[in-house]
Amino acid sequence: GDEAAAAAALARQAVLTKPPGSLGRLEDLAVWLARWQGRAIPRLDQVSIAVFAGNHGIAARGVSAFPIEVTAQMVANYAAGGAAINRLAETAGATLTVVPLDLDRPTADFTKAPAMDEGEFLAAVSAGYAAVAPDLDLFAVGEMGIGNTTAAAALCAALLGGGAARWVGRGSGVDDHGLSRKRDAVEAGLARHGAKVADPLAIAAALGGRELAAMMGATLAARRHRIPMLLDGYIASAAVLPLARMASDALAHCRAAHCSGEPGHKALLPALGLVPLLDIGMRLGEGTGAAVAMLLARAALSCHAGMATFSEAGVAEKTC
Amino acid sequence: GDEAAAAAALARQAVLTKPPGSLGRLEDLAVWLARWQGRAIPRLDQVSIAVFAGNHGIAARGVSAFPIEVTAQMVANYAAGGAAINRLAETAGATLTVVPLDLDRPTADFTKAPAMDEGEFLAAVSAGYAAVAPDLDLFAVGEMGIGNTTAAAALCAALLGGGAARWVGRGSGVDDHGLSRKRDAVEAGLARHGAKVADPLAIAAALGGRELAAMMGATLAARRHRIPMLLDGYIASAAVLPLARMASDALAHCRAAHCSGEPGHKALLPALGLVPLLDIGMRLGEGTGAAVAMLLARAALSCHAGMATFSEAGVAEKTC
Repeated sequence: GDEAAAAAALARQAVLTKPPGSLGRLEDLAVWLARWQGRAIPRLDQVSIAVFAGNHGIAARGVSAFPIEVTAQMVANYAAGGAAINRLAETAGATLTVVPLDLDRPTADFTKAPAMDEGEFLAAVSAGYAAVAPDLDLFAVGEMGIGNTTAAAALCAALLGGGAARWVGRGSGVDDHGLSRKRDAVEAGLARHGAKVADPLAIAAALGGRELAAMMGATLAARRHRIPMLLDGYIASAAVLPLARMASDALAHCRAAHCSGEPGHKALLPALGLVPLLDIGMRLGEGTGAAVAMLLARAALSCHAGMATFSEAGVAEKTC
Repeated sequence: GDEAAAAAALARQAVLTKPPGSLGRLEDLAVWLARWQGRAIPRLDQVSIAVFAGNHGIAARGVSAFPIEVTAQMVANYAAGGAAINRLAETAGATLTVVPLDLDRPTADFTKAPAMDEGEFLAAVSAGYAAVAPDLDLFAVGEMGIGNTTAAAALCAALLGGGAARWVGRGSGVDDHGLSRKRDAVEAGLARHGAKVADPLAIAAALGGRELAAMMGATLAARRHRIPMLLDGYIASAAVLPLARMASDALAHCRAAHCSGEPGHKALLPALGLVPLLDIGMRLGEGTGAAVAMLLARAALSCHAGMATFSEAGVAEKTC
């Protein structure tokens, strides 16, 4: 990040017509945008959300409340403009890009084999990297993939411990039997691949999915281009956990948009060093939480860029 | 509220292309707007924020970090468009009305006399009531008044107990000496007026302020006109506490926009039966938290009104 731009933004916040600090995290968001854009007064003209979609072999084990066909059906829904992320991206003033990743070729069932081989994994990471235009002012990732809360839980359990019970939730809404199948699947995945824990990328390939790998690649691209980035929910956060395990500041350009209603997310966010902006029980994915958080970024910028200073407004400053 | 409209909105939420409940509180917001507007698909065309400003005799006791002149200076700043609420109202698509209430005539110092006599109190309530147009789709109140966190704390302490320490915070940023003076002022106010606790309106007149009374009147008007309403922070919430003490469902048309960084607010919200939408450390007042929460309401409506249903999109529904 650009510390000079951040310092200039912080100095501006101190003289705007409000008690110092009284806009709370809106002030932090303005300074964060300034730091990563390298502008004391940042802008939000080019705002973009990339949604990656993938299919999962593990879905065949009955871990989701929805059939695997729904991944492609929802991609069609995105194209038609009928999904939540279409409406929220529009509300947030963000362009939406949807990248389906080999939907007719699900990953392998990770209880039997690595979800992806090295070539498949790198292709997905590259697809994510390539989806990020270098001149964005703010970026977010989202995902769609029936079965991917199971992949996210397996990744978290492998890299952070605590067993399946800590990381498996109801996802899109499985019943008790489905929940039990999810836990069994995660435990079986850990038994097969857990020994690779010293290599977070190998874990990502073995237990993750194409859309998770793509979100990792997109996060690297945003960092490379110094684009401030909002992480969406549980799956997006799990997707970048391998990066955080390899480099403690890998997510310095990221903010957590929200804490998902999916319970594992609350445990995952501290492991990423992130404090969520919103906690309103969203658990849809698609980048929807990130899109709502973009509204907070717009609110933050509107104050930062548009408020009068004490001297401009002739308002007396703090006296004690 | 209109339960038929709410039921129709809830039924629509169940068939939109997302797992049931996965938009969390955005779904609740859509149903809440439907209930109070009496429309299964509500609208947010006429959205308004009213900011009431008042001055406080108690300010002479050194309870604020800012001089009392700042109230009028900030009203001028609102007129010039330079304050946070100007920028946030614009971002939220809300019209902003600012109502200064006898700024050259502060309330009485409540450690010595009731802040307002009955006539002054009723005039302020009426000014608030009159500030609400009957055809609004969404409404919020905010306030400006140097010293008014002290009035809010005194109101809460009188009606909810726990003493000054539970309700007094640093407000706009007083130092330790100022904090001590605030606590002393609240304790003195309780000693003088606490016996009136059985009459919440008498407490509101004795310990509150004109802008607090006006917010109470505006809240009554919104209820009368069935307008869904967002409460701002600590002072707006304290202002309506007397209503909640008189009628348990008086705030059924309200949602709490946020939990203020001012610590008393976290204790106050449960007493009002409200769960805040945001908790991002804002403590500016002016309706700023409510304006940011309006963005969430817009996000909620965009999904509710604009998403495709499962059958429209040809997406398979939940199977287990």
